Parts: sequence; structure tokens; C-alpha cells
Amino acid sequence: MQTICVKTASAKYDVVAGSGLIGSLAPRIERVCGKLPRRVFVLTSAPIWGLWGQAMQQSFSEPPIVMFLPPGEKHKTLASVEGLLREMAQAGGDRGSLLIAFGGGIVGDVGGFVASIFMRGIPYIQVPTTFLAQVDSSVGGKTGVNLPEGKNLVGSFHQPLAVFADIGALETLPERELRAGLMESVKAGIIRDRALVRFMEEHAEEVLGRDAKSLEKVIAASIRMKAGVVNQDERESGLRMILNFGHTVGHALEQATGYKTLLHGEVVGWGMVAALYVARERGTITRAQFSRLEKLIHLYGPLPALKLRVNKVVAATGGDKKNVGGVRRFVLPLGIGDAGVVEDVTAAELEAAVGYMLGRRGERTMLPSCEA
Amino acid sequence: MQTICVKTASAKYDVVAGSGLIGSLAPRIERVCGKLPRRVFVLTSAPIWGLWGQAMQQSFSEPPIVMFLPPGEKHKTLASVEGLLREMAQAGGDRGSLLIAFGGGIVGDVGGFVASIFMRGIPYIQVPTTFLAQVDSSVGGKTGVNLPEGKNLVGSFHQPLAVFADIGALETLPERELRAGLMESVKAGIIRDRALVRFMEEHAEEVLGRDAKSLEKVIAASIRMKAGVVNQDERESGLRMILNFGHTVGHALEQATGYKTLLHGEVVGWGMVAALYVARERGTITRAQFSRLEKLIHLYGPLPALKLRVNKVVAATGGDKKNVGGVRRFVLPLGIGDAGVVEDVTAAELEAAVGYMLGRRGERTMLPSCEA
Repeated sequence: MQTICVKTASAKYDVVAGSGLIGSLAPRIERVCGKLPRRVFVLTSAPIWGLWGQAMQQSFSEPPIVMFLPPGEKHKTLASVEGLLREMAQAGGDRGSLLIAFGGGIVGDVGGFVASIFMRGIPYIQVPTTFLAQVDSSVGGKTGVNLPEGKNLVGSFHQPLAVFADIGALETLPERELRAGLMESVKAGIIRDRALVRFMEEHAEEVLGRDAKSLEKVIAASIRMKAGVVNQDERESGLRMILNFGHTVGHALEQATGYKTLLHGEVVGWGMVAALYVARERGTITRAQFSRLEKLIHLYGPLPALKLRVNKVVAATGGDKKNVGGVRRFVLPLGIGDAGVVEDVTAAELEAAVGYMLGRRGERTMLPSCEA
Repeated sequence: MQTICVKTASAKYDVVAGSGLIGSLAPRIERVCGKLPRRVFVLTSAPIWGLWGQAMQQSFSEPPIVMFLPPGEKHKTLASVEGLLREMAQAGGDRGSLLIAFGGGIVGDVGGFVASIFMRGIPYIQVPTTFLAQVDSSVGGKTGVNLPEGKNLVGSFHQPLAVFADIGALETLPERELRAGLMESVKAGIIRDRALVRFMEEHAEEVLGRDAKSLEKVIAASIRMKAGVVNQDERESGLRMILNFGHTVGHALEQATGYKTLLHGEVVGWGMVAALYVARERGTITRAQFSRLEKLIHLYGPLPALKLRVNKVVAATGGDKKNVGGVRRFVLPLGIGDAGVVEDVTAAELEAAVGYMLGRRGERTMLPSCEA
């Protein structure tokens, strides 16, 4: 079990990564809050609750009030938020209530947002159950929902009281989701952690085989990277931008495909390929580094093949939330383990990178151990 | 013109009260922001825009994007919020955009909330046009909307960049709204400012006659009181509670009447009568102080007569947002110019106070000058 402290201007809390957390949640929350609040709400999805609900409830002497969010990005809406807020009001929720977001990234984003605006803000705890949510969305206090006009256009910064990332929950995670989530760890390594890049290169088999120790190592390193960045820049005014490596083109892919066919981690994987291409052409990474990192991405693939036109993807980058005053921001790696933000990527550079990305096949490279 | 500085843990900004502010908004915003953001949104109501829109626009070299909220509490909803957020996204709003809330309390509450969640928070400026909004809701960063289950159950704390309270805008304010708004100034005096109580007793005629100098004095004193409290307690964990004097029963009246027949200031007026009664019975104010303060409330009346059953009002206090863990909180004055929060008001005390309040006639007492 590893504990990583997140300390922002507005809050300080622990992220705990390890096994057996779901079954011991109540006493853990008591340690954080002093005592369990009178009303505890759990936001979850029916599949997660079916798998882990009983394990979670057993540690509570009084059962929490369970609310469900149907799975899928299409329910990450203000309409869902309103329904949940009304449920809480009807159940007698007050300013002293606590919300537990128990599920994947969507549950975490929606739950955090609901907590941030119910009665002008109540405390909440993240219990992420997917790899992606554990290493990325549950840490850092970003909450939100989509508008028809774009993803995550509405939300808040609201830090949780604590995050409990139970590696046991990953046992039941579909293979494709695990691989997609691992893209965020690849990202973490590329922008901030050379050692993580190496570990992931050398231990792909254990990680993909869900070896608990290897997973904990990758998860803790990814969280530590993110916490380090968030600690220095809670509200994404500068450094936190680098966490968006792969996301400029990634978000464009999500928009261009209607958020339907690809998982978030998969578009980030493809987006990293495009960003690496820009970086290679500009010389902020060498050709050798480019090949090594592209190989790493495909090692944790396969990324689903893309059937899109270059124009469509390029056009979709225009609506990215990171754009302030019409500038197209881009995160580029500087070697391996460092990255910076540039604002002068030209349309031609972007087109070339997207063209390269669309021309690649998404199939997984052989595992190194199989090459031997 | 008077400038009051608000300084909370999360922000520091000026509230300017005076004449001619609406016509000089752009240069004033430039002084606050450095330069005018590329996209400026104005949220307003059609009536206010009809009266003051031209005056406001003239100081902008590029006209801001104007969005309308239909008047009335029934539009203070998440559905309205969603519509506005979508309008902003469609108009190319980004994280660097600015929102100006130009209107009464509802426009300010909704505008502030929209600003707090659009792209996880953009800056906003309050330009309140009603007395109530100028002295109360525009200062302190409380934003929010209603749910069918209750008023202001959803919202955030999001401090504006600045507040410009133009006393000129009060010229066109309906008489009833002015009187209702003045209840918040009466409240300010009772809980925190003896001198304001005296000034309002002695200058009722000038204030109600909209003498600019007298109005500015009352408005500035009210804002100063609120700023002083907010500065010490942004998130209403302790001291800020006293601002809710008159609001426990006031909110109950709003709920019992379906937010339809009474203005917010009017229910606060009646709620203060009830709270003063509890205070008198407990001896935290004398009988003489009770009479004097009740008289002051009616001096700025008339408060519309109430036709409600005691039970209904008492039951409606149960849902007040200030209740944490089922405790019924009540703000009681301690003499004139001070107040405290108690949690042990019994059902019997509350019933007696509500009974007294419902038995009173709301007609305005004679102005002191007429008694002479």
C-alpha cells in the first residue's frame, strides 16, 4: 500500500493506492473526517455496485444512500447532475453530508461536480474503480460534465477529502479498459518520469497480466507524478497544462468520433503519437526517442484503427478548452521525462502530425519478451 | 462614491457604490483586469437592458455579447444555467472570457454560478441594479439556483472581480422593491451597526424619497457590514451565519407561499419580526429594544399581510439550508448592533414567534416626521 499526499492551495489530502481498501472504507473515512457524517451518499454505476457493492457496504454500520448513474459518456450531463442533486435534497442531504464517488472516471467527474455545487459544496471522497480513474481523474480535483457543444465544458475545481484506489477492483476491469488506462501512465512517464517509462517497457507482461505488485508500482508512480504537478498548479494556469500531453489531438478525436467508438485512454494514446510527431519534427525529441516512445504506446495497445479525414480532426482541435483567446496550445515532450507548452504549432505541422497518426496501424507491437 | 474592499481567503476585490458607474463600465473593468478580455458576456434581463443597456454599451468599443434571463424566481433553475452555458460555448467563450451580471439578485446569482462552472470557472463582475442586490447578494460570492425541493440548494462560492453598485439604477426601481431591499439594511443595522439603525430611523423620508446622498450612505454602510463579516468568514462556517438573521423564518415563508407572493426582503422583514420575538422572550433584547426595532421594520414597510397557518410555516423551517445534521439554527440579536447563533430554539418558542408574526398587521407605521 502506498500513500501519496496531494497539497494544493485549497486543500491537502491523501491518495491511498493498494489492496483491500473497498472493504475497509468506513473506518478509513472516519480517520479522515473524525467521525462518519450523519448522511453518506454513494454515487456509483449499477455494474460496479453489482460487483463491489456488498464488499463496500459491509464496513458501514448504517448503510449509505446509494445513487446510480447509468454507464456511458452520454449520461455525463447537467440533466444527470440535476437528478442527483434532487435525489440528495429529497433524502435530506445537508451541508454536513458526504458523497462517495465509487466507480470510473465518469462517476468521479459527475460525483465531484455534484458535491461541489450541492448546497454550495459538500465534502466528497473518490473511490475509483478503473485504472484510468485511479491514475488520473480521481486526483487533482477536476470535476465536470459535458455540453452538447463539447466535453467537460462545465465543472469546477473541488478537491476530494481523500482518494482510495483499490487495486483489487481492477480484477474485474475489462482488458480494453485496462490497456486504455495505461496510456495515462505512459503519458506520466513521458512528460515527467523516465524511470516509469523504463519500468513500463521492461514489465509490460506483468503489468498487463495484472500482477498486483507491478500494477501498484505503475499506479503509485502515475499518481505521484500527477500529485507533484497539481501541488504546484491546482488550477491549470501553467505547469498543470503538461498533463494535457496527447490531449489536444485526443480531444479532437473524441469530438470527431462523437465520443462513441474510442475510450479516453485510446484517444490519448493516438494523441500522444501525433504530439510526438510534432516534437520529432521540431527536434525537441530525437528520432530514436520518437521510435522508442511510439513503440511503448503500441506495446500497451492495440489502439483501435482510426478511419477519419485529416481535415475533420484538425478542425476539431479548434474547440479545445485549453485554448485561451484563440491560441492553439500544445504540449510537447522535451526528451523523455520532461515537457513544455507551446502556442505556435502551425496548421501545417498539425496536419502533418495528424496525417502521420491516421496512417499508422494501431496493432500492438510484440512484447519484448516475445521478441527474444 | 465609496469603495469598500472585500478580502476573503480566496480573493480580494472592490465594491464601488456611487452614481454614473454604468456609463463608465469598460474603463473601470480595464483598470481591474489590465485589459478587456477578448470576449465579454453580459447576462441581464430584458427590462433592465431596455432601461440601461444603451448607457452600458456606450463605454465598450466592441459591444459585449448580451444574454437574457427572463425575470422571476421561476427561471432561477439549472435549465436556465444550461441554456446560458451552451450560448457561451456556441459564441466561442473560453477560459479567458469575462461575464458581467447586470441586473437584480437573480441575474447576479445565476450569472455568478454560470461563471463559476463554465470551463471550471471564469472571472465575473457584478453590476447590481436593485437595492437588494446592491447591499446584499452581489457581495460575498454566493451564487446559485433553486431546485424544486428548495431555494438556493445548488450553487458555489465564487467571488467577483469587482462589484459596481450604481445608485442611478435605483431611479427606475419599483417602490415595493426598494422598500423590500431596505429590509436587508435594517438587518445590517440590527446585527452589526447601531449607527445605521439610528440613521435609518432618523432619515426614513430621505431614504424612501431616493435622496442620492442618503441612499449612498445606507448602501455603503450595508455593504461595509457585509464585507466585514465575509472577510472573516467566506464560507459561512461561523460568523457569516449572522447574516441569516430573519432568514430562518423568512425562507420558510418563501417556501410556504411558493416564492410567489412575497419579495425576498419582505419575508426577511417578517422573519426578523419573528426572530426579534424569540430574542425578546429569551431576554437577549429588552422589550424597549424589541418595540423600537419592530417599529423600524414597519417604517420601511408596508410588509404584505400574511395569510398562513402557524403549522405550515413551522414545518417549512425544517428544510432550511442552514440546518446541519437536523439542528435548527437561529440568529438572535444581542441588544442592537450585535447578534449570535443559537441551536436550541424549541418548537414551542418557534410556534409562539410565528404566531405573533402572523397576528401582526403589515401596515407601515407613520413616519416619525408625520407624528410630530
